[in-house]
Amino acid sequence: MPTIKREQWSRHFAKWFRHVLTDACIMDSRYPVKGMTVWLPYGFKIRGKILQILRYLHDSTAHQEMLFPLLIPETSLDKEAEHIKSFEGELFWVTRGGLTPLDVKLALRPTSEAAIGPMLKLWIRSHADLPIKLYQIVNTFRYETRATRPLIRVRELDSFKEAHTVHATEREAEAQVKQGIEIYKKFFDSLAVPYKISRRPDWDKFPGAVYTVSFEQILPDGRTLQIGTVHNLGQNFSKAFDVTYETETGEREHVWQTCYGIFAGRPLVGALAAHGDDNGAVLPPTIAPIQVVIIPIPYKKMDKEINKACQEVASRLKKADVSVEVDFRKDMTPGSKFYYWELRGVPIRIEIGPRDIKQKEATVVRRDTLERQAVKTNRLVVTIKKLMKTITEEMRQKAWERMNKRVYCVNSLDEAKRLLRRRAGMVEAPWCGNAECGHKLEQEVNARVLGTPVDSKEKVKERCMVCGKKAENIIRLAVAY
Amino acid sequence: MPTIKREQWSRHFAKWFRHVLTDACIMDSRYPVKGMTVWLPYGFKIRGKILQILRYLHDSTAHQEMLFPLLIPETSLDKEAEHIKSFEGELFWVTRGGLTPLDVKLALRPTSEAAIGPMLKLWIRSHADLPIKLYQIVNTFRYETRATRPLIRVRELDSFKEAHTVHATEREAEAQVKQGIEIYKKFFDSLAVPYKISRRPDWDKFPGAVYTVSFEQILPDGRTLQIGTVHNLGQNFSKAFDVTYETETGEREHVWQTCYGIFAGRPLVGALAAHGDDNGAVLPPTIAPIQVVIIPIPYKKMDKEINKACQEVASRLKKADVSVEVDFRKDMTPGSKFYYWELRGVPIRIEIGPRDIKQKEATVVRRDTLERQAVKTNRLVVTIKKLMKTITEEMRQKAWERMNKRVYCVNSLDEAKRLLRRRAGMVEAPWCGNAECGHKLEQEVNARVLGTPVDSKEKVKERCMVCGKKAENIIRLAVAY
Repeated sequence: MPTIKREQWSRHFAKWFRHVLTDACIMDSRYPVKGMTVWLPYGFKIRGKILQILRYLHDSTAHQEMLFPLLIPETSLDKEAEHIKSFEGELFWVTRGGLTPLDVKLALRPTSEAAIGPMLKLWIRSHADLPIKLYQIVNTFRYETRATRPLIRVRELDSFKEAHTVHATEREAEAQVKQGIEIYKKFFDSLAVPYKISRRPDWDKFPGAVYTVSFEQILPDGRTLQIGTVHNLGQNFSKAFDVTYETETGEREHVWQTCYGIFAGRPLVGALAAHGDDNGAVLPPTIAPIQVVIIPIPYKKMDKEINKACQEVASRLKKADVSVEVDFRKDMTPGSKFYYWELRGVPIRIEIGPRDIKQKEATVVRRDTLERQAVKTNRLVVTIKKLMKTITEEMRQKAWERMNKRVYCVNSLDEAKRLLRRRAGMVEAPWCGNAECGHKLEQEVNARVLGTPVDSKEKVKERCMVCGKKAENIIRLAVAY
Repeated sequence: MPTIKREQWSRHFAKWFRHVLTDACIMDSRYPVKGMTVWLPYGFKIRGKILQILRYLHDSTAHQEMLFPLLIPETSLDKEAEHIKSFEGELFWVTRGGLTPLDVKLALRPTSEAAIGPMLKLWIRSHADLPIKLYQIVNTFRYETRATRPLIRVRELDSFKEAHTVHATEREAEAQVKQGIEIYKKFFDSLAVPYKISRRPDWDKFPGAVYTVSFEQILPDGRTLQIGTVHNLGQNFSKAFDVTYETETGEREHVWQTCYGIFAGRPLVGALAAHGDDNGAVLPPTIAPIQVVIIPIPYKKMDKEINKACQEVASRLKKADVSVEVDFRKDMTPGSKFYYWELRGVPIRIEIGPRDIKQKEATVVRRDTLERQAVKTNRLVVTIKKLMKTITEEMRQKAWERMNKRVYCVNSLDEAKRLLRRRAGMVEAPWCGNAECGHKLEQEVNARVLGTPVDSKEKVKERCMVCGKKAENIIRLAVAY
């Protein structure tokens, strides 16, 4: 992998990212269909770790994992008018089975509201059947006409986690949106990925939703990446699919729904972008398929002893639930092994050489800081376990600091324009709350309105940058992926 | 669930099966697209257990898990002539993206040889890159025109495990076929599902393969179900996709390939059919999401004590890695709880009531035999752990005996015809090895030639039932799903 220094990422992030995906054996983007890629074994394992965290967070909050079919009949998709209107330009359509045309066209799911709707209608009779909280991890599809990029803008979202919940009251649905947000915060925190949470403006919410909350990360090139969304669907879909329940007093009412989704590829981009450096990927221990790599430093006649020591350390770490690998390859120098594992982002390297053996020590190297320390063999397991927590914590802190530096509070249109033109990051500005001013802003600064803050509640005293009226809220602007 | 006695399954298996899928909350087949169903939470967990075993068996034999895209361009599928010819009648085609027709039609993968071929060409340079052993677990599609049945004949195979391997020599590929067979034997053994292994006749092999080996189970209705296949692909695909490698002596040669696949739904049918009874599903502990259910038997003022005892037993079992649930529901009698969990096939039930508390015991009930025994509380964990092994072992034995009784060695066409007409099971007969006689047989007995035994090597002394010439081998016949 060519060295592309982190300082240069504001301009060369895309290049670094492309290289790290390929050279760290995460994915291969040469598959002969636009916007579709192949997960390589190492990348697939990282993906697995990410999904494992998502599963844990959903299972432990009473969500049930299920699996719905990929294909949605046009007749189902048509039911929610806004939904189909918005997706119609980006659906893949199956129109032929075998040699004959299909009677009813089938769409590859872009998301599963319309697959789940007809089933909810069958499952829900009374209030006793509620709430329902389900999720699935599936491949979804968007016929993306713009330039595609692996993991960032793709046509097959091959690891989409979508949760769908159904409630008896509006209030419960509202509370569920909050739980969804909390789950996602925990998720990104465990990946040490920083985020800003915004409520999308009305003109840019999920098609069919009452409102949409979105998690954004600022990438090193100054553009923002949407890494997760939470939607309150109100009764829009339940009315479209006629999903009702009998209340305790015997009346029939439409259910209230929410949904929230994460395409696991995006948080991976997030983690790579937040932590990577000149030498390649830097994975937080929480999603690293190999958390510790042990490298023997060969020396004359001590090789047997050294290898044995490596093996012993490995088996002790394994017993302590650390995922570890010893790199015994004989056709590589220790130096080239360092390079190999640094590129792949393995959080901790242990080197064991003749000196270490004599001193009953091992040399421990952190991937994130590249700091070295000697650790007594009998303290090794405890030290490594503690170090993994420290690393995640410090990576998170550093990433948050880095992101926060790229959020700019501005008061003038010119400043906003200037910052966004040079891709400085996210811009926060006072806003009157009027959609018209929002649209004007987007045009003026040539960027996207992300919405209003969900993660901070500062009082706004300034005036709207566009109309000069008293500002009601903060508006966030960015050049978005 | 209506009682459908196992003795009547020869005629009513389909009905029992439909009920058990629905009533045990395994899947819902009312999804509005033919041949596509929804995995309910409990069924999804069983599916997960099955896939976990498959993953373990592949990971521990140096297979790497990966993920390839769903969509295969027509230009790739066209390359292997036999392959496309055979599949062309059963492909789902994506012909439109958004509002415009696609330049190159995209097929939903029926299997992934044609998705993997172009990538192998990029990855393989020299003999040092070989062997490659990869697998993926994905949804695949067949435009099935016959009547569909959940898990048995479907249009979306939503949990298809497909392994693909690449080798430098024919011999290695041959050895890999053997390893594939061994992996599948272990897999079915761990599900206590019995099988017969046959080498398919030449006229019925996987399109593009040199030969095909198939695992079959005999269902209670006397029809056979293919539950797994292993294929030697020779150089057919490598020639079609021009995948070559440089040998040690510097020449270029085409690689040798194998592949083997299991749609996880089929072994689940296998397990349900092999072990189920009048009361519903009977799951082997290896794939039961809940291995032990604990049911408190309430009694006057002892309820607190009883519940505490249940909780204690549960936490001890959990520590011993047994997946356990305590059914504390208050609106159900113990009897209805027994029924509820028996229907779902939970392998072991523990009842704890006042008498048990007094005697420092618990009542342990096996799902497979419905036998009850009292076990001292301090012996409970050891007993349960041992019992789970015993149950799996005895279920396997019983299922094998049952299947073996339905394999008939015959010597006359009339007998074969008679047995197959009344769906007795699988018929083995002497065969000269000639395809013409094979075809004639299929017509005469109105059944399918499964192939010749891979799992037994008896010498055949009789004469071919069709032509009367000296028999070369055994031929297996059955009415197949």
